[in-house]
Amino acid sequence: MSTRARPVSASAPLAPLLARLQQVRATSERICAPLAVEDQVIQSMADVSPPKWHLAHVSWFFEAFLLKPYLPGYRTPNPAYDHLFNSYYETHGTPFPRPQRGLLSRPTVAEVLAYRHHVDRCLGELLDAPPAAHAEEINRRIELGLQHEQQHQELLLMDIKHILAQNPLCPAYRDDLPVPPTTSSNKLTWHSYPADLRQIGHAGDAFAFDCERPRHRVFVEAFRLASRPVSNGEYLAFIMDGGYARPELWLADGWTLINQLGWQAPLYWRHGDSGWEEITLGGRRPLDHHAPVCHLSFYEADAYATWAGMRLPTEAEWEVAAVDAPRQGNFYENDYLQPVAATAQAGALQQLFGDVWEWTASAYRPYPGFRPLAGSLGEYNGKFMSGQMVLRGGCCVTPGEHIRATYRNFFYPHMRWQFAGLRLATEA
Amino acid sequence: MSTRARPVSASAPLAPLLARLQQVRATSERICAPLAVEDQVIQSMADVSPPKWHLAHVSWFFEAFLLKPYLPGYRTPNPAYDHLFNSYYETHGTPFPRPQRGLLSRPTVAEVLAYRHHVDRCLGELLDAPPAAHAEEINRRIELGLQHEQQHQELLLMDIKHILAQNPLCPAYRDDLPVPPTTSSNKLTWHSYPADLRQIGHAGDAFAFDCERPRHRVFVEAFRLASRPVSNGEYLAFIMDGGYARPELWLADGWTLINQLGWQAPLYWRHGDSGWEEITLGGRRPLDHHAPVCHLSFYEADAYATWAGMRLPTEAEWEVAAVDAPRQGNFYENDYLQPVAATAQAGALQQLFGDVWEWTASAYRPYPGFRPLAGSLGEYNGKFMSGQMVLRGGCCVTPGEHIRATYRNFFYPHMRWQFAGLRLATEA
Amino acid sequence: MSTRARPVSASAPLAPLLARLQQVRATSERICAPLAVEDQVIQSMADVSPPKWHLAHVSWFFEAFLLKPYLPGYRTPNPAYDHLFNSYYETHGTPFPRPQRGLLSRPTVAEVLAYRHHVDRCLGELLDAPPAAHAEEINRRIELGLQHEQQHQELLLMDIKHILAQNPLCPAYRDDLPVPPTTSSNKLTWHSYPADLRQIGHAGDAFAFDCERPRHRVFVEAFRLASRPVSNGEYLAFIMDGGYARPELWLADGWTLINQLGWQAPLYWRHGDSGWEEITLGGRRPLDHHAPVCHLSFYEADAYATWAGMRLPTEAEWEVAAVDAPRQGNFYENDYLQPVAATAQAGALQQLFGDVWEWTASAYRPYPGFRPLAGSLGEYNGKFMSGQMVLRGGCCVTPGEHIRATYRNFFYPHMRWQFAGLRLATEA
Amino acid sequence: MSTRARPVSASAPLAPLLARLQQVRATSERICAPLAVEDQVIQSMADVSPPKWHLAHVSWFFEAFLLKPYLPGYRTPNPAYDHLFNSYYETHGTPFPRPQRGLLSRPTVAEVLAYRHHVDRCLGELLDAPPAAHAEEINRRIELGLQHEQQHQELLLMDIKHILAQNPLCPAYRDDLPVPPTTSSNKLTWHSYPADLRQIGHAGDAFAFDCERPRHRVFVEAFRLASRPVSNGEYLAFIMDGGYARPELWLADGWTLINQLGWQAPLYWRHGDSGWEEITLGGRRPLDHHAPVCHLSFYEADAYATWAGMRLPTEAEWEVAAVDAPRQGNFYENDYLQPVAATAQAGALQQLFGDVWEWTASAYRPYPGFRPLAGSLGEYNGKFMSGQMVLRGGCCVTPGEHIRATYRNFFYPHMRWQFAGLRLATEA
Repeated sequence: MSTRARPVSASAPLAPLLARLQQVRATSERICAPLAVEDQVIQSMADVSPPKWHLAHVSWFFEAFLLKPYLPGYRTPNPAYDHLFNSYYETHGTPFPRPQRGLLSRPTVAEVLAYRHHVDRCLGELLDAPPAAHAEEINRRIELGLQHEQQHQELLLMDIKHILAQNPLCPAYRDDLPVPPTTSSNKLTWHSYPADLRQIGHAGDAFAFDCERPRHRVFVEAFRLASRPVSNGEYLAFIMDGGYARPELWLADGWTLINQLGWQAPLYWRHGDSGWEEITLGGRRPLDHHAPVCHLSFYEADAYATWAGMRLPTEAEWEVAAVDAPRQGNFYENDYLQPVAATAQAGALQQLFGDVWEWTASAYRPYPGFRPLAGSLGEYNGKFMSGQMVLRGGCCVTPGEHIRATYRNFFYPHMRWQFAGLRLATEA
Repeated sequence: MSTRARPVSASAPLAPLLARLQQVRATSERICAPLAVEDQVIQSMADVSPPKWHLAHVSWFFEAFLLKPYLPGYRTPNPAYDHLFNSYYETHGTPFPRPQRGLLSRPTVAEVLAYRHHVDRCLGELLDAPPAAHAEEINRRIELGLQHEQQHQELLLMDIKHILAQNPLCPAYRDDLPVPPTTSSNKLTWHSYPADLRQIGHAGDAFAFDCERPRHRVFVEAFRLASRPVSNGEYLAFIMDGGYARPELWLADGWTLINQLGWQAPLYWRHGDSGWEEITLGGRRPLDHHAPVCHLSFYEADAYATWAGMRLPTEAEWEVAAVDAPRQGNFYENDYLQPVAATAQAGALQQLFGDVWEWTASAYRPYPGFRPLAGSLGEYNGKFMSGQMVLRGGCCVTPGEHIRATYRNFFYPHMRWQFAGLRLATEA
Repeated sequence: MSTRARPVSASAPLAPLLARLQQVRATSERICAPLAVEDQVIQSMADVSPPKWHLAHVSWFFEAFLLKPYLPGYRTPNPAYDHLFNSYYETHGTPFPRPQRGLLSRPTVAEVLAYRHHVDRCLGELLDAPPAAHAEEINRRIELGLQHEQQHQELLLMDIKHILAQNPLCPAYRDDLPVPPTTSSNKLTWHSYPADLRQIGHAGDAFAFDCERPRHRVFVEAFRLASRPVSNGEYLAFIMDGGYARPELWLADGWTLINQLGWQAPLYWRHGDSGWEEITLGGRRPLDHHAPVCHLSFYEADAYATWAGMRLPTEAEWEVAAVDAPRQGNFYENDYLQPVAATAQAGALQQLFGDVWEWTASAYRPYPGFRPLAGSLGEYNGKFMSGQMVLRGGCCVTPGEHIRATYRNFFYPHMRWQFAGLRLATEA
Repeated sequence: MSTRARPVSASAPLAPLLARLQQVRATSERICAPLAVEDQVIQSMADVSPPKWHLAHVSWFFEAFLLKPYLPGYRTPNPAYDHLFNSYYETHGTPFPRPQRGLLSRPTVAEVLAYRHHVDRCLGELLDAPPAAHAEEINRRIELGLQHEQQHQELLLMDIKHILAQNPLCPAYRDDLPVPPTTSSNKLTWHSYPADLRQIGHAGDAFAFDCERPRHRVFVEAFRLASRPVSNGEYLAFIMDGGYARPELWLADGWTLINQLGWQAPLYWRHGDSGWEEITLGGRRPLDHHAPVCHLSFYEADAYATWAGMRLPTEAEWEVAAVDAPRQGNFYENDYLQPVAATAQAGALQQLFGDVWEWTASAYRPYPGFRPLAGSLGEYNGKFMSGQMVLRGGCCVTPGEHIRATYRNFFYPHMRWQFAGLRLATEA
């Protein structure tokens, strides 16, 4: 987070921030609106949280880090919420065990919404007359809270998809999603980058997470990058070529995993009456061969790249290519909530942003000189820097304003309920 | 089930049965009425089912075994329900995996209730004009369906208690339960029975489950039986005497279990500010030392008996003592939904029925000459006759008309979320 | 154990017992003689113990219960053995964790043999001049120690078979086992027993385990018993008829188990080039269709009986039939170490003793009036009386003098590395 | 492996290589010589292999990749060995399941040694008259086989230590290890390195593993490196300061792990009568406060560095510092088989090589332009490039000639049975 972000005149109301806050907070509730109450209680695997838990947790974040320290006389609706909705801040208190979030029927959805509105009202009070001595820190934390809630908006849509997909009734999250445009094949081309000493990482005053900093030098050998992500049709060719049965294509951990779990295709692919289908947030649909392949684990992305005689790009390579690209694409606001095929754009890299997160070849580790935030907020990113891989570019359920070229997302290599695909790279 | 139960004149409407059916069906919904929708979705452990699943499953039972075979032109609201709500009838189809019942947000509670009412209407039609050729079998199956639903009424209350007990907010199922009468100590006395060739098991035309038949001879050596179940106060003395730390008191499997799971007291006991408390369906309450101890596993019941220098009664001994006792006690209808202390009744055995199921020393095995029901209904009881122990007498959440002296309930020895306690026995 | 067994004149040397002791102790070592040192270290599953552990444990039994209490000045070769070789006597000390027995390379086989010989020498001293005050108890405990060692002789052969069977090299335990006589088919006939009040259990002064006592009355309804155990050929017909794929034949726990583990046949059956083969202690052999089927779990035995329209006998039925039968059969001393086909014997029940343990329908529970031995030896049998089923009659690796009609063996229903088969029974 | 290594005149005998081969092969057997046969059978956890398995596997490597392809008419002593001793070469055949290596009593130790000698003889034949067309590849593979066997020499000593440490008898591997010199405290100093574009990775014709190549450019920011590894005394201060109880010091995965497993100290530390002791290959010894701390997981190394306000070096930083350092230290040949305190050496970095492997901050991932070996040998390193961290410098059980500055060792972050410690680094 910037240490000099958006300087404010102390004690002045933070009105513009408040408007943005209200908009972000409303979005979270809008995401849950199409759900039945019953949908909001389910935890379909340990990595998934019940939607109502998300709604409460992001409110707890504001309560724990803004209202309790800075709003004089603040009273929580229920002191037990500090335990129930603490996700993983061990230095703040004892988090309720993650795998048991689905055992909590109470607070009910209505009570969670009341909690949200209580927090909203109190945040309004705080921003209306912020204590002068803390206005800058309040500003910073509100910004962090907003970004945090946007991350959970994406998590909500990932988790809702997973929850509904468990059900043999195949319920759709929404029946009114727009139909993606039909597109013909989009030839993959290669973009070349010379070897050079580059700089990556976030600089400047605008918001970024601590893990994106500091901006630093890195030498990047010459490389080539594919013009677009790998498509469903291309991934299908890998499957048809025995991709899931050829150990020489796989990392050892991946080979063990796919054999233990019996994986034969991406997470939401199903055999339908007339070929492959895909579970989407709009229900079950025929597989679109031109759309980017999605819901791959790192192991599958890596095996595909090996099969193709290529490799995944490093995060530095990806950032070098993306730094000047327009930050536009198929995001949450496009309302497809599913990756769609790119329309041909001669000469440009396509879909760097939006559609699917792109697995990189880079482990999620600290940048040289990395410093986590002070206090409990230091647990936000830094403590997850082992065992995970970096993904870049955002996806079709990421709020568009949340993403940037330096953004580092991270998941364990076996995870694939996030909207993750891949883009090929190779030596020059 | 009796093969000559309640003979009916073929094709006559089965009006009295219908009235009883409606009453039993209404009770299930009344049990769930105090719940939030959210409470009805939770599966707090593999043995527990979400309340809405229970409501649907008992309806499925009528659909699968009555409506589909006997109501011409019957149409199900959703063919997938035959998979989702089949509990364990492998010969009927593929049951939905039990440990995943808590992953089903749909059908919603409202949809489940609609399913119930659809089944109710169709059962009304069927009973209004039963096909003559099948009237007797329909009668038998309706009776079985009713008894089955009553079993699930008890399961509902067991499961609701378990679901709510997971929550650190300690929500009560109901705030309006009557307060049990305060009672002073009730001295335990002994009743003696001479050695004799006895008969146990169900005879006659009235309903009983297949596993209670046939009535048969068994030689029972002389024994003595305690006048009432072991109380919380007595069990507390066992705990204070190091009961959970003395291996010589325990069956080997029990000793392993309590050490693995760290058990130190009955399931719902908690340390409160001023002594032991107990989670009840009415919320957290101080432990009533005179009430029967409840929520014990077989291992704990057996260890207590060993510590007391006694043993558990066999199911034959229990039945010999109970056969002439009045079938009255603290049942579901009493609305305590918790075991209560007995009022002294000079000379009589107390609380044989109601309050707590009493663990017996007998493994749940077939009686000599046992024959399961024909077809898929043969899976009802017989296939569970390994690894489980018999409990007798019903409890405070059992519908009173559901119980009888020959009734054999059964649970695995490690289970204790049912309302189970014990009564001591010894050689004469 | 008898409380009045073989009265001795105090302080007289116990010479006859010593001779028997030496013979039994020598047998254990003879059983291990064909093994490589490496074979004696392996624990192929948690239920199996390394052969050298058996050799040490039975010596520890004598040390802990005879030498330490009764031989003045006794010194153990290593005080740590009291921990390492205590099997499950929790009141004696802390047993070394059972599943970790295979992690102990030391003491070596040579050191274990030295330990044995040390114990043998000291037992010789003790029996040569037993302290008068304890002579009777010493006599009782020596007898128990002998019986205990005989039980471990059978366990050794079970475990050796299991250890070697893990190895793709298929090593034989011995290459010099006698070839069983070839036999033609042996028609199964039925023996009838009228309903009667019977007595079962051990009486008299001769040795028997505590769990075989007291002799007591039991009413046994009329029944019929098969003349011989079920054969491999008959069991093969069950398999060919889809036995392992038909849920209606199985207890629920068994159905779950065989599907989880993929069981399709008895434990040691393998598909060979020309039909079914069986792993034996003499190596891999073609399946003998006339020999009793062996290495079945209780669930398989029960499913077979259901398929055949019959049931398993209760232990009382079995004992009623066996009480007057000659105690002869195919035992360890016959040196086949594998069940063999019976030779036709008109009119008599065959193979009640030896060949295969016969699963009964009875759970292993205490007889009315059961009293375990005093002190730590009370843990010998009593604490295992939950979750297990009774087997009767001994098998081809049981020392012949160890068995009797009242003998109650017990295993969990999923276990099948013991030499267990079944005999059919039915109502009269 | 070098593609131009040590050019040979085709068909000339490879005599010098043969001498080295014989020396390396003899070392493996010398390592196992102090063991009892029983010690060689144990697999104390899934990561450990029985010593006799190591002895056989390294021979299988020569058989599979040298003798079968290149020695005309080669016959294996047992075709099943190709299954049993294949470690993880999935493209070569089906490896025997790793966690079951401890279930194989056969082949015996003697048979394994016979297999070794058979392979040795045949390798002699092959090297005596290598087929001209393949001499270069044979030369390369012999070199790889030697390096492979040296890796297993270290694994043997790690595994032997772990196997013996399971045993409450605390057996020493050897009683004749030299006593390390007693040393007084050795002040830690800091060495500074300016920011620069560096080169790392192996170049030239000498042997190196494929993962050490290609040499490539990397920009390294200015950093400082500690003069020696962290000592036991320093690590003890971390423990005394509550290091294992403070979540803010730990990576999230590490915090979960230490709480699940109850870790409170390095793997082989034990509380003794007069303070901390350490299990070594020479038995249990008082902890040497000046010796480098050893048997740490990556999580513990990282938490220590965080506590100290520092960090781990990246592998590039380490290599920059080590590239010109003399390749000497406390290796296998020094025969301590335990890290020892450094003797002060003014001005120099100490103990970069030997004593303990040093955890780096770098995930084990391919270098830019990495190419695995062709064929099955490509599985040697590349497929393990996920989830693991790089360690550098070798340790006290590494053969001295096996190590070099570019050497990349790798383990999962939770592993700590290898001789692993840490050296601190920080920004300049």
